[in-house]
Amino acid sequence: MTFPDFLEAQPDAGLLSPVRAGTPVEAAVGDLAWLQAMLDAEAALVRAQARLGTVPAGAAETIRRAARAELLDLRALALAARETANPVVGLVRALTAVVAREDRAAAEYVHRGSTSQDIFDTGAMLVAHRATGLILADLARVADALAGLAERHRDTPMAGRTLALHAVPTTFGLKAAGWLRLVRDALERIAAVRERLPVSLGGAAGTLAGYLEYARLDAPEAAGDDYAARLTEAFARETGLAGPPLPWHTVRTPVADLASALAFTTGALGKMAVDVQTLSRTEIAEVAEPTAAGRGASSAMPHKQNPVLAVLVRSAALQVPALSAGLLQCLLAEDERSGGGWQAEWLLLRECLRLAGGAAHTAVALAEGLRVDEARMARNLGLTGSQVVSERLAAHLAPVLGKAAAKELLTLASARATAEARPLDEVLAELPGAAHLRERGTLKELCDPAGYPGAGGELVDAALSEWRRRPGRSGAGTDQLP
Amino acid sequence: MTFPDFLEAQPDAGLLSPVRAGTPVEAAVGDLAWLQAMLDAEAALVRAQARLGTVPAGAAETIRRAARAELLDLRALALAARETANPVVGLVRALTAVVAREDRAAAEYVHRGSTSQDIFDTGAMLVAHRATGLILADLARVADALAGLAERHRDTPMAGRTLALHAVPTTFGLKAAGWLRLVRDALERIAAVRERLPVSLGGAAGTLAGYLEYARLDAPEAAGDDYAARLTEAFARETGLAGPPLPWHTVRTPVADLASALAFTTGALGKMAVDVQTLSRTEIAEVAEPTAAGRGASSAMPHKQNPVLAVLVRSAALQVPALSAGLLQCLLAEDERSGGGWQAEWLLLRECLRLAGGAAHTAVALAEGLRVDEARMARNLGLTGSQVVSERLAAHLAPVLGKAAAKELLTLASARATAEARPLDEVLAELPGAAHLRERGTLKELCDPAGYPGAGGELVDAALSEWRRRPGRSGAGTDQLP
Amino acid sequence: MTFPDFLEAQPDAGLLSPVRAGTPVEAAVGDLAWLQAMLDAEAALVRAQARLGTVPAGAAETIRRAARAELLDLRALALAARETANPVVGLVRALTAVVAREDRAAAEYVHRGSTSQDIFDTGAMLVAHRATGLILADLARVADALAGLAERHRDTPMAGRTLALHAVPTTFGLKAAGWLRLVRDALERIAAVRERLPVSLGGAAGTLAGYLEYARLDAPEAAGDDYAARLTEAFARETGLAGPPLPWHTVRTPVADLASALAFTTGALGKMAVDVQTLSRTEIAEVAEPTAAGRGASSAMPHKQNPVLAVLVRSAALQVPALSAGLLQCLLAEDERSGGGWQAEWLLLRECLRLAGGAAHTAVALAEGLRVDEARMARNLGLTGSQVVSERLAAHLAPVLGKAAAKELLTLASARATAEARPLDEVLAELPGAAHLRERGTLKELCDPAGYPGAGGELVDAALSEWRRRPGRSGAGTDQLP
Amino acid sequence: MTFPDFLEAQPDAGLLSPVRAGTPVEAAVGDLAWLQAMLDAEAALVRAQARLGTVPAGAAETIRRAARAELLDLRALALAARETANPVVGLVRALTAVVAREDRAAAEYVHRGSTSQDIFDTGAMLVAHRATGLILADLARVADALAGLAERHRDTPMAGRTLALHAVPTTFGLKAAGWLRLVRDALERIAAVRERLPVSLGGAAGTLAGYLEYARLDAPEAAGDDYAARLTEAFARETGLAGPPLPWHTVRTPVADLASALAFTTGALGKMAVDVQTLSRTEIAEVAEPTAAGRGASSAMPHKQNPVLAVLVRSAALQVPALSAGLLQCLLAEDERSGGGWQAEWLLLRECLRLAGGAAHTAVALAEGLRVDEARMARNLGLTGSQVVSERLAAHLAPVLGKAAAKELLTLASARATAEARPLDEVLAELPGAAHLRERGTLKELCDPAGYPGAGGELVDAALSEWRRRPGRSGAGTDQLP
Repeated sequence: MTFPDFLEAQPDAGLLSPVRAGTPVEAAVGDLAWLQAMLDAEAALVRAQARLGTVPAGAAETIRRAARAELLDLRALALAARETANPVVGLVRALTAVVAREDRAAAEYVHRGSTSQDIFDTGAMLVAHRATGLILADLARVADALAGLAERHRDTPMAGRTLALHAVPTTFGLKAAGWLRLVRDALERIAAVRERLPVSLGGAAGTLAGYLEYARLDAPEAAGDDYAARLTEAFARETGLAGPPLPWHTVRTPVADLASALAFTTGALGKMAVDVQTLSRTEIAEVAEPTAAGRGASSAMPHKQNPVLAVLVRSAALQVPALSAGLLQCLLAEDERSGGGWQAEWLLLRECLRLAGGAAHTAVALAEGLRVDEARMARNLGLTGSQVVSERLAAHLAPVLGKAAAKELLTLASARATAEARPLDEVLAELPGAAHLRERGTLKELCDPAGYPGAGGELVDAALSEWRRRPGRSGAGTDQLP
Repeated sequence: MTFPDFLEAQPDAGLLSPVRAGTPVEAAVGDLAWLQAMLDAEAALVRAQARLGTVPAGAAETIRRAARAELLDLRALALAARETANPVVGLVRALTAVVAREDRAAAEYVHRGSTSQDIFDTGAMLVAHRATGLILADLARVADALAGLAERHRDTPMAGRTLALHAVPTTFGLKAAGWLRLVRDALERIAAVRERLPVSLGGAAGTLAGYLEYARLDAPEAAGDDYAARLTEAFARETGLAGPPLPWHTVRTPVADLASALAFTTGALGKMAVDVQTLSRTEIAEVAEPTAAGRGASSAMPHKQNPVLAVLVRSAALQVPALSAGLLQCLLAEDERSGGGWQAEWLLLRECLRLAGGAAHTAVALAEGLRVDEARMARNLGLTGSQVVSERLAAHLAPVLGKAAAKELLTLASARATAEARPLDEVLAELPGAAHLRERGTLKELCDPAGYPGAGGELVDAALSEWRRRPGRSGAGTDQLP
Repeated sequence: MTFPDFLEAQPDAGLLSPVRAGTPVEAAVGDLAWLQAMLDAEAALVRAQARLGTVPAGAAETIRRAARAELLDLRALALAARETANPVVGLVRALTAVVAREDRAAAEYVHRGSTSQDIFDTGAMLVAHRATGLILADLARVADALAGLAERHRDTPMAGRTLALHAVPTTFGLKAAGWLRLVRDALERIAAVRERLPVSLGGAAGTLAGYLEYARLDAPEAAGDDYAARLTEAFARETGLAGPPLPWHTVRTPVADLASALAFTTGALGKMAVDVQTLSRTEIAEVAEPTAAGRGASSAMPHKQNPVLAVLVRSAALQVPALSAGLLQCLLAEDERSGGGWQAEWLLLRECLRLAGGAAHTAVALAEGLRVDEARMARNLGLTGSQVVSERLAAHLAPVLGKAAAKELLTLASARATAEARPLDEVLAELPGAAHLRERGTLKELCDPAGYPGAGGELVDAALSEWRRRPGRSGAGTDQLP
Repeated sequence: MTFPDFLEAQPDAGLLSPVRAGTPVEAAVGDLAWLQAMLDAEAALVRAQARLGTVPAGAAETIRRAARAELLDLRALALAARETANPVVGLVRALTAVVAREDRAAAEYVHRGSTSQDIFDTGAMLVAHRATGLILADLARVADALAGLAERHRDTPMAGRTLALHAVPTTFGLKAAGWLRLVRDALERIAAVRERLPVSLGGAAGTLAGYLEYARLDAPEAAGDDYAARLTEAFARETGLAGPPLPWHTVRTPVADLASALAFTTGALGKMAVDVQTLSRTEIAEVAEPTAAGRGASSAMPHKQNPVLAVLVRSAALQVPALSAGLLQCLLAEDERSGGGWQAEWLLLRECLRLAGGAAHTAVALAEGLRVDEARMARNLGLTGSQVVSERLAAHLAPVLGKAAAKELLTLASARATAEARPLDEVLAELPGAAHLRERGTLKELCDPAGYPGAGGELVDAALSEWRRRPGRSGAGTDQLP
């Protein structure tokens, strides 16, 4: 495979997309993998026809052997696609030539009765199937790591923050359990979409007429009444994909479902990333990314250890929802094949797969290596001098003062504590309204943030139990997809 | 220009959104309905607490009676929301005042242990539950109507069109079956999301600490170990919503799922709409929208009968994917409550519900009333003088000429037929390459577009059978949701 | 104006959109304002025709007097719009009836030669003109306030933060100057779009044929060769809008330009908002929002003073880019009027105007009242024990060690300083590589973060000068739009 | 399936994006071009420093000679970018090594005082500058071709279509003038953005402190008071880019402006594409794409000549608004450098450039070669039997009947004409209400669609005149950018 000039040689080597550069999903969805998947679709189609007896088995085998991406000129196919608005016309021409060099008769059976969209879309689903397999495996590892974090830090108190400010205490275990929940939801959504990814088999306008016509001419006895259904089923079996309920050239459910599930996945991972970024801030410093030689280095500032894994994950999460919206717009596919709507999907779908896959892979390193500073969490939790438990104090003052007066008293006390830089319990101890708490001697205890975890522990337990007993999970751990 | 007071009263009467103006979903998701849903959430919360014995039953009943939107000042609440970045702080204040007028003691139990987001999000899910119920009912009617169309036109030939041109024949039944498939997919996705819509119950930072603290103070004996779980369950039962796996203040799966399902729904309906628009074109005229007095009228052109239902449906389908992308971005919710990410969801979610609901309602009229002109379909199918079956002819020439030569011959013959404005069979009859077809006397028959429906009929049968035997469908028809 | 039932009465009172509830832009773009703007368009059209002598002046005056929104039934028009896919058909009918009650002859001249889209789009541009006027005024106030902040804090050192970590020092003045720059850019973009907002005048399919035909029949002598151009110009003059280069029914530049400028505006304000949120964090606390009675209160936590203004601004900034993308998609308007593409714009455009307007209004309070804690900035700047100037130290070590060795030394020293919780200068003082700095006695001085402001001051000066000498600015201050 | 090594080599050869495969913009924005642009930025930076006397001229020259992409390992840089979340850290290391091999002293001056974002963003702007240059040249060719079409078909009548139906007549010239207007608007927007594309120069946190510190150490006499401003200016001059008003690491106006202009551009071209698709439909057939050997071929249907150029252009137009929305979200860049927001821009920006560039290039062929079938336009215009001029007839009936009765009469007559498949004038001739037209003998003439062009001709003249006399246009034609 040669290219006319050097600049052309590497239009995309991943330079602009570090979140996926070099990750397994990158190769799995690259142009060459896509080409191979389309060739796999051609091979599977003719094998399915052979299995039903409407094409000679030998021809199918010859075509299978010829359907190898390295025998074709990828760049030439890409350029030729401009002439026909899809790369399959050129692919069929090139594949036919390769087959014909070995067996002219077999060449007659390449793409028999078929149409570009059947091959392209089946290839796309094969690519998506492989990519989502990688994504699921990485998500399972992320989830296992988060489950470990949640378990270890089930009772680690930290500040719960709302609208940027300390609100009430929470635990780091509960925060990790929330991340786990999102990753688990992503797993479920990707797995559900993945198992329904269908072959495309409709022929020129979705009636399978070409397949039927050739079959009737070639082997009328084999092309009985339910031939279309049987061919679809055989094609699905050969590819490992699902059989579609109906030809879907302009019934774009599979693409829309992928778009939604992938946008959800990067969003789920992105939530963890933004939290890690916040907790990594110099002033907060409650977590740190795993270190590795050179990772996180800056070109100008020797002291920095940038939280780069979170940065990469977030970069994907900011892109995929936009790309996904573009894919959902393509549901408005007119006629029996959209002129432009179909083509608009290709790049968007590949990017969604690639970015989600890169984000999932990056998140494995992040979740497995995250370092947690419990002492810093405790120190930060003390920063407000117990104002972080004002809600609790309100509950204890309300029975005596009424809830409105209790809230008013605490608002006042908090303001004074802040202004005078004193702990809230000290200020409260001076106020008549809080006399009963002072007298009861519980004020100090009530003001300890670590004593107000709510149901954090139980919630963590429930989340862990749910994750570990999820359907389909073997005892062996993460190698089983959910 | 000055704005008299009454301008304030009606910032949105539906003028800019005819697709939903006056449809049932509009009232179901309007501000007043939203306010009522939040009040319903407050009432359900205190009923749940009373059921568990941590709040007096009488107080719960008093609060329930007071929780009526018409007792509050909607506009004042909207304005007050600017001060606190959410409308619940004001709502609690106003509701407390209403309750206190009847029973000061009961007023102490309003919003007990709670937080704004629990009430807002539970209210939002109640609104979504009601709106999706309406949407499901309308989608089921659309699907039934499309099933009827598919059945009646199972064998009605028409031109299959790809990239805007006649490709090979299809049937109108198959086209309707494709629309049905999309609507059925939408139904399935909305129904799946709907049954998982959860209550929100987390308290100030997701630990339920406030609920627990009040319960332990008020009724320690009733606030045992699993109180948080029991309260969540009771709250869910009171509202009819699901219990969430975890507090979801910043675990936004429910909102993301709604966004995806609603974008899918409008896209599914939009596909039908763009097809109806195309088939309604003056030059094509194969379908027409149902007429009604005044519908489709133009301000300038007396002769026009605009396909307005399709226009309205398409207008929604062009908006919702964009709005939905905005919602998916909000998955990146930082901390225990996002400052801005949460607020950004509200309008977008309501519009998605409202536009999808309006589109579904409009699509009922479109699908139930669509008029199909079979004669015109037949006439249009003849426009290319049998070029529309060139694929079929290629199949019949290939065994003799080889597929490449067959295609070449037909490309040439088609070009000549077009240039000379003659039927393809006439041109072919003169060409030596097609001699065997001419001799066999099958040329005329092969060139009849109506004779090349492929598996259209079987595909329609399968789609109908799948729709009519879907799980959960009663014999009674559309009133059962799937 | 009565409504059939209570639920219908207030479909949108701003409850879900606090960023704009009660702000001036809300009323300016509400349904009633939109209706009035369309009536203004009808009145201006007939006045323009009268000015050219093709319609009696008396009729124009009668129509102008009748064209008042309060004489029509807004909700009825909204509902009627479903029948015709736009509200103008009903509006013309209703306006004609009002006019006819006073003068039957004048009623003949309502909407003469016109088409729905001319009236709707001209009305939309009038609404946009008014709304962008409000936005410009608010942006100018924001910019002035930011200029004040930049000036006052020209030399206030603070930590510059990159990828969440302290990087090198910066000044708060420079940060404010960056915000100012964005707001200034927004102003420029909105102002440029605003002055080109055009009337729509095309007639039924963009040829102005109807206008010409009536004019030739009514007053042939007045309807000479360039009547179309003269009418467009007169219409523009009557409305205060620009004359379009061409009828733009499906040449949607004005809408796309608005979309882009409004998305930019909320993004510009959103940058300030996310910075304010970060700097408001409990652990950072370098800025605080202006307080006001009740503002920032929480329903559960008496101590909180939430940064609600930033929350509201950010909520708009998260929505508008998505809405704007929907508008840009509508550039693909087919034919001479799009069936659905046009309708999809309406709600999206109004929301973009309303959210941007609300954000700008909210940002005025934020920028004018922002409180800056210089002492806290200084304290935070010291948190890394001078690691924040490692870049500077590298520059001073490089001449002796070479840049690579210098960077290596500082990486090592920083790691040790962090591990041992010691200031960087102390650690450096022990290392042989830094001997020359120690000997020169400059180490302490070099390690003072306040001594490394770079060109911060000059950059602030330039930004202030640019803002204050911008073209079109009067001496009087903010009341002049740029 | 296993992936051989060579899969890694070509992750993207354009297979999924035919709209840009092989077009000039593809190479101009590819990874290697991007790498070269970043190297150009490094070289320009040190040349600027040398020009100001703070770096030895010889070192600058050595670095310039070394800054060649082919000396570096692109893929290795892409992979290394994962460690630092940007590719510049690795690039600096690699470039330094190349320089050091020739001159160790010069290597000290690589990236002196700089930061990754300055180099990346300046490189990005250089890429954008080159790509937009290509886009402008192609847009100018498209516009010239459209001007030619508008001129030739100034008076070619065709049906004006609204909401899919024949409305009133228009001319093909006016339609082409509308396309021209959009392309001209795109040109103007791209040109305006292009001339403001700035260098990035801020140093580690936007204060230029590193540049200043090194300059003061290296050449204190040359690093006087306004050094930062002078360096920025010199850097801009060396690159050919503009000087920015302020460092823009998190003031992302340039990227947002590009996003908006590119989304507008594809939308503008997309409008032409959807119109061409409609007019190419088998039933309409008023235009056809230029033919070329093999272009438009189908894999299954020998007769088809697909309008592939329009398909490709539309495919870009469906993607770029979504991508652009992602870029606009990135305006919310926190702190002095966003961790994730910056990285999210890279791929989106490149795709926007590449798709817009591909669309513009494709549109040249489309616009220059479009074939127009005037006879078919005339025939189609006759399809409604003069109903297409019902607006005109209403104008002539109104003076006698009043406008309401006139409209009613024509609604009735049109319905009868349609039902009986007769020309409207024939039906009208029988109706008493139209007696005066019949008597006057003008009915036939009024019913001729070709006689009702409105101001179509004048509008075309104005559009042509505006295009041809635009500012900056030389007499030489399209080689001058506007």
